[in-house]
Amino acid sequence: MEIFADAVFAIAFTLPMVELKLPEVGPDTQRQLLELWPSYLGYGLSTLVIGIYWVHHHFSGALYRTTGHRFLLTTLLFLAAIAFIAFPTRVFAEHIQNPVARAAGARFYTVALAATSVAWCFNWRTARAMGDIDDRLTHAYVERLNRHYTTMAAILVVAAALAFVSWELGISLAGAVMLYQLRPPETPIYVDEAPIVEEEI
Amino acid sequence: MEIFADAVFAIAFTLPMVELKLPEVGPDTQRQLLELWPSYLGYGLSTLVIGIYWVHHHFSGALYRTTGHRFLLTTLLFLAAIAFIAFPTRVFAEHIQNPVARAAGARFYTVALAATSVAWCFNWRTARAMGDIDDRLTHAYVERLNRHYTTMAAILVVAAALAFVSWELGISLAGAVMLYQLRPPETPIYVDEAPIVEEEI
Amino acid sequence: MEIFADAVFAIAFTLPMVELKLPEVGPDTQRQLLELWPSYLGYGLSTLVIGIYWVHHHFSGALYRTTGHRFLLTTLLFLAAIAFIAFPTRVFAEHIQNPVARAAGARFYTVALAATSVAWCFNWRTARAMGDIDDRLTHAYVERLNRHYTTMAAILVVAAALAFVSWELGISLAGAVMLYQLRPPETPIYVDEAPIVEEEI
Amino acid sequence: MEIFADAVFAIAFTLPMVELKLPEVGPDTQRQLLELWPSYLGYGLSTLVIGIYWVHHHFSGALYRTTGHRFLLTTLLFLAAIAFIAFPTRVFAEHIQNPVARAAGARFYTVALAATSVAWCFNWRTARAMGDIDDRLTHAYVERLNRHYTTMAAILVVAAALAFVSWELGISLAGAVMLYQLRPPETPIYVDEAPIVEEEI
Repeated sequence: MEIFADAVFAIAFTLPMVELKLPEVGPDTQRQLLELWPSYLGYGLSTLVIGIYWVHHHFSGALYRTTGHRFLLTTLLFLAAIAFIAFPTRVFAEHIQNPVARAAGARFYTVALAATSVAWCFNWRTARAMGDIDDRLTHAYVERLNRHYTTMAAILVVAAALAFVSWELGISLAGAVMLYQLRPPETPIYVDEAPIVEEEI
Repeated sequence: MEIFADAVFAIAFTLPMVELKLPEVGPDTQRQLLELWPSYLGYGLSTLVIGIYWVHHHFSGALYRTTGHRFLLTTLLFLAAIAFIAFPTRVFAEHIQNPVARAAGARFYTVALAATSVAWCFNWRTARAMGDIDDRLTHAYVERLNRHYTTMAAILVVAAALAFVSWELGISLAGAVMLYQLRPPETPIYVDEAPIVEEEI
Repeated sequence: MEIFADAVFAIAFTLPMVELKLPEVGPDTQRQLLELWPSYLGYGLSTLVIGIYWVHHHFSGALYRTTGHRFLLTTLLFLAAIAFIAFPTRVFAEHIQNPVARAAGARFYTVALAATSVAWCFNWRTARAMGDIDDRLTHAYVERLNRHYTTMAAILVVAAALAFVSWELGISLAGAVMLYQLRPPETPIYVDEAPIVEEEI
Repeated sequence: MEIFADAVFAIAFTLPMVELKLPEVGPDTQRQLLELWPSYLGYGLSTLVIGIYWVHHHFSGALYRTTGHRFLLTTLLFLAAIAFIAFPTRVFAEHIQNPVARAAGARFYTVALAATSVAWCFNWRTARAMGDIDDRLTHAYVERLNRHYTTMAAILVVAAALAFVSWELGISLAGAVMLYQLRPPETPIYVDEAPIVEEEI
């Protein structure tokens, strides 16, 4: 599982490079290279978002004890979202200089960020419901993580809806949520497994 | 073997993203993004089919005990089919709106689904014939799996033939077979290795 | 090392799929799909050659005991050849219908096959010279392998030279050598490590 | 971590192959294939630089004991630089025949080489500051490595600045630094863990 997932992440992370279009040969190559900044922005945003998800995926890998059939299927769904995200990112970045297209791009991107987060949350909740999570983790810890993932997904869905009212607000909220995810995840807390001592009376 | 196979699956899974064409900058970007739905459909179908095969490949990995030379070769053949499948998927999806081209696309896609399934079955049967399957599995279990893979391949070959009579029937049958594969595979059953007790008379 | 090498193989194996060009939507999609046969041939040849090298690379992985710095560098050179080979393959396949271009394509392809084989042989010989090969293998076995790899590379270099006299002869010879490599490699033979017994007189 | 990083390296290593453009079918295919030499140069330079970094990354993998959150983030930054580097390499190589564009390409490439080296150094220094480096390595060894990485990054930054004065000087210096990195890294030196013997007086 880990090899497949890590490879999908790695390809999604690296592939946007292919989309960078070579400037034409001519006297103003330097200016053309600078004018490609929306493409660089798109590349940077892709790697940032995919990188953040990879860190959390890498972390959560230590929390699962088993990988049941349903969990595999929801993981595939999440990975399909990760592999897809570079496209809306590029639509947003490449259209950023056009006042009209910019709004459509930002909406598409915000919706895609929300969908990815929902897919992540759905994957996590499937694992939790099917008993794939390491049962040595404390209940309180698992609940905190659950609340965290659900809240993130909920705010991103709100951001996606908001983007249809004001794309500036929508994408700012989504961006804030993503940057917040740069923080390290909480260290797992395991149930204390001290030996049970038969006490004398 | 597993690293190579998982990486091929991951690339085949992620690569169709590259084919998504950025809409032109303009006032109707939003409409253009919606009109790209055949591309999204193609992407979705690709990841669905490759994902299903990955789950079964991942599962069957636990059934093999050795990887002989012939088994390696037939695995490469199967992986070449997996790497190829995104192309007919895309031909089908991108031509879905044209009444004439749609039929050709559907036929091509159904033939490709059948060929992939035949390659899978051929790979499995080679492993079985060469003794690469874990011999602690019960004979009945291996036979059931064998029957299952052979039946799936046979129905898909029928679907491919049918597609040349009526593409709607052919692709519907192929789609039904693929969705049926979303079910979890049967848990392996191992020969009971209880110690043989010398009974007294 | 293995992860990196296997991933390069997997990408080289899968990437040619990207080059398949979607036929235009129209009444003769079916005919167009059939006329793409040189592309399918190119895809098939790529996966065949890369697959054959992968099997031999996978096999030889068990023969090395260490991976010194020079061995890493020559492995990178060999992997660069593997990653490159799809390009000459495609040049050959896509030009196969044009009587003039066909000769140039076949020459380029034969030279590339020879270069890949020389890179493989150079990598092997570096490992052998630097002491990276498992010293429990019998001397005779290592020598046989050495002779085999050297002979294959030498014949392919002859084939590449021949291709400039007659491309038909050159590519036929190269093809024969590659198909010959489909045979399973010889099982490693280890030095008998029976304990040395002090014999009494 | 290793799987993800190795996969990113492998994709960055292999992907430039996609950018090789097939010459048109015609009587002068052979000449066209020869005229593609800037593309081959670009491919060669990409694999050389990415290969060199891979060797050092592979080597340094043995030096780390833990992978903290910040170290993961700086590794992602470094990997983003690795995945990006093929683009400036291509800009440089493809424009090498045009006297004006060549300067812009060389500058862009030198800046990218410097940025990658700075990202590498930043990654290393983060690991060192956060205590992720194996503490059984001698202090002197770690300091030498630190000085080496810092010096390389500093010279490459100087080369990038120099490229804006004279691109020939800038890229020559950068090239010399990269070729210098082909040397094997110094073998790790571990603190001598000989048992402390209580000496009698």
